[in-house]
Amino acid sequence: MKIPPVKGTRDLYPERFAPIRRIFDAWRSASIRHGFEEFEGPTLEMLDLYREKSGDELVGQLYRLTDSGGRELALRPEMTPTLARMVAARINALSRPIKWFCMPKLFRGENVQRGRLREFFQWNVDVIGTADMVADAECILVGVEALRDLGLTEKDFRVHISNRRLIASLLTGAGIAETDHAGAYALMDKVAMVEGDVICKQWNRRFGKQIDFADLYDLLSVADLDTLRGTLAGGDSDIRPSANLDAAIAETEQLFTVLRHFGIIEYCELDLEIIRGLAYYTGPVFEFHDRSNANRAICGGGRYDDLLGKLGKSPEPAVGFGMGDVVLSLMLEERGLLDAPQTRNAVFVADAVDGLRPKLLGVVAALRRAGYQTEFNYVRQGLSKQLKTADRKGCVYAVILGDETLGRGVVQIKDMTGGQHREAAMDALIESPREVLEARP
Amino acid sequence: MKIPPVKGTRDLYPERFAPIRRIFDAWRSASIRHGFEEFEGPTLEMLDLYREKSGDELVGQLYRLTDSGGRELALRPEMTPTLARMVAARINALSRPIKWFCMPKLFRGENVQRGRLREFFQWNVDVIGTADMVADAECILVGVEALRDLGLTEKDFRVHISNRRLIASLLTGAGIAETDHAGAYALMDKVAMVEGDVICKQWNRRFGKQIDFADLYDLLSVADLDTLRGTLAGGDSDIRPSANLDAAIAETEQLFTVLRHFGIIEYCELDLEIIRGLAYYTGPVFEFHDRSNANRAICGGGRYDDLLGKLGKSPEPAVGFGMGDVVLSLMLEERGLLDAPQTRNAVFVADAVDGLRPKLLGVVAALRRAGYQTEFNYVRQGLSKQLKTADRKGCVYAVILGDETLGRGVVQIKDMTGGQHREAAMDALIESPREVLEARP
Repeated sequence: MKIPPVKGTRDLYPERFAPIRRIFDAWRSASIRHGFEEFEGPTLEMLDLYREKSGDELVGQLYRLTDSGGRELALRPEMTPTLARMVAARINALSRPIKWFCMPKLFRGENVQRGRLREFFQWNVDVIGTADMVADAECILVGVEALRDLGLTEKDFRVHISNRRLIASLLTGAGIAETDHAGAYALMDKVAMVEGDVICKQWNRRFGKQIDFADLYDLLSVADLDTLRGTLAGGDSDIRPSANLDAAIAETEQLFTVLRHFGIIEYCELDLEIIRGLAYYTGPVFEFHDRSNANRAICGGGRYDDLLGKLGKSPEPAVGFGMGDVVLSLMLEERGLLDAPQTRNAVFVADAVDGLRPKLLGVVAALRRAGYQTEFNYVRQGLSKQLKTADRKGCVYAVILGDETLGRGVVQIKDMTGGQHREAAMDALIESPREVLEARP
Repeated sequence: MKIPPVKGTRDLYPERFAPIRRIFDAWRSASIRHGFEEFEGPTLEMLDLYREKSGDELVGQLYRLTDSGGRELALRPEMTPTLARMVAARINALSRPIKWFCMPKLFRGENVQRGRLREFFQWNVDVIGTADMVADAECILVGVEALRDLGLTEKDFRVHISNRRLIASLLTGAGIAETDHAGAYALMDKVAMVEGDVICKQWNRRFGKQIDFADLYDLLSVADLDTLRGTLAGGDSDIRPSANLDAAIAETEQLFTVLRHFGIIEYCELDLEIIRGLAYYTGPVFEFHDRSNANRAICGGGRYDDLLGKLGKSPEPAVGFGMGDVVLSLMLEERGLLDAPQTRNAVFVADAVDGLRPKLLGVVAALRRAGYQTEFNYVRQGLSKQLKTADRKGCVYAVILGDETLGRGVVQIKDMTGGQHREAAMDALIESPREVLEARP
């Protein structure tokens, strides 16, 4: 009776999970170095939390269930609504800025394809309680540093930065009413996925009177903010100037200034074509892209100043991002960065003859208690077979128990890298394994 | 618009999650030292996996859902069925013994009470592919060592050990048919929970002709196996001897012998009243009990030699346990073992005057890249306020940037524990932060 795994889930056997654990470690280490604290929330939330907070795309992919009391629940498809709910519940007690991270497993019932699964892990980093661009820059910084720790360089990825407020000001300046912005974003968000002329036609049919698709994308394709300013000031464009537009450009400039001071400007570029799918972004938005595959985003995030206000008492500025494990794993794998040799502090305990198991088990327990990864064969084999196992398991030392040596109160210690043998007192090994094993002749 | 969390789930704010992270670290570290490899599997499994493999109690508590293709899924209530499925799928490729661990989040729709939640983490440790009692002992060993690492001693917990095969042989020896054993176990499993005489009456009504409840529990309350052997041999009991009974006693003795060799016998005791709820156990079973609250089990497990055979091609002996985070956290909290002071390798970077932000941000990024948890205020405050923040965040050093000092190319470094100030070259700090910060005068 064979029961298959669920489609879109992963059976992570140890050799497949080890690289993901390395990614988790890089995420955590970078988060802590950058002053973020770890939190965790429920996997099950009330369905309403997502109905209210997530974009339509995510709501359509929700795994829904009903509990024994008839309540409608959902498996979390993203972490931000939980974060917002938790912060709102303690809004007065938490000191600002709130800098939190987590590494939840998320669930989306979407079509399975390369880089997209129904269960995946996602690193979430958020700064809440400040509108200062230092917060946005710090989010980008911690993301860059984690990827660097994993071996990726500025040759491998780039941070594409846009600003929803800037885009909104452009759309408003072109005469598109605010109530139509969501529809405009939805079209623009598809530009990278769908063939250009399909979107172009759809755009011009709906918004062509306000601004032509080609003109808009000419404007969005500027390489820097000075050029954008020049173009807008030149009077060639259909965009009416506004204080809001000026403020949005200044805010974006400020973000780039902090990124320069943090020393990571070489990773970053202005890319106003970045829109982001989620409904709640209000300011800078960004994506980390694989440079060898421009359509592949490793990470996405941005500022969402209005979300907490909707859930709690008062508005609370916030910025954050999510980085999944699936695309990142693919990228690291393609570059051979996942099969770095594992250094293991492992020791093998062997018995050269029968009848020494009681002593062997005692040595094994003592070495483990001293912190060594300690291996032994459950069923005794010949010594050379045992040493082969030790080698295969990457053990650094083998401790060999023999009749003659134990009679003298000593054991043999074999250095598995160099091959030298030496003797050490059994009592000393049990008492202070570290001193005995690490002793240099 | 306030949306509450789901009952039985936890909002783990950073100060509540930190101790759970410490528990995770202890679980992982002990697992790796004892030669176990980490794996992870899906949270969503086909409902049938549990219908086939778990006890009725767990199946009744399952969170069920239907995916977009109409398939019946469930949230995993335990990890063993996933483990069995994964091992069965690669049964021929995996070298024995298979020693795996994982730390999944599990889901049970049960009544919420102290120590029981609907979402919790559970450490799982399993050895597959050997019937040798060394495997059972090694599972108990790794559990004991993880609890020791967390600060618990033999005064705090004990390992209660029984053997399903031994109990089965006693029941058979008393004349209870094998088809009735599951019913007998279900009654016996309730003895600790329900008042003794209720179970006594139910037992005697059903099995009194075979063996009286009081006689059975006289037998099960023996302190050691020699006494059990003596009682059985004395002929006073209603139990017919059998080869199976002898083998089960010998197997249990063997387990205790290995536990003695591993040096953890002082944590272990024979307790034949331990039954375990799950259907699939076949040999030794064990529970770790809080000594100050005898009804509270921290951990439970045992041998399940038949489970893999049902899922795959051939039977495969196996033993393992699960240890949840909820009861363990309560136990550690009651003993004050969760509020051990955190040692943090943190540095604070302060600016004594306005206008130094660009330099400050560069120092922050350099220290973080060098591995220091580095804090700073987003918005500049007076120096004394900044140093207070540094203190509150437990920073070990403060790096202070000033106009006069930067003019000379140096920064001040304040030792936050001792209070001494010294100066260091700014360039040197950026180039090799560790050497500069850790330098001793």
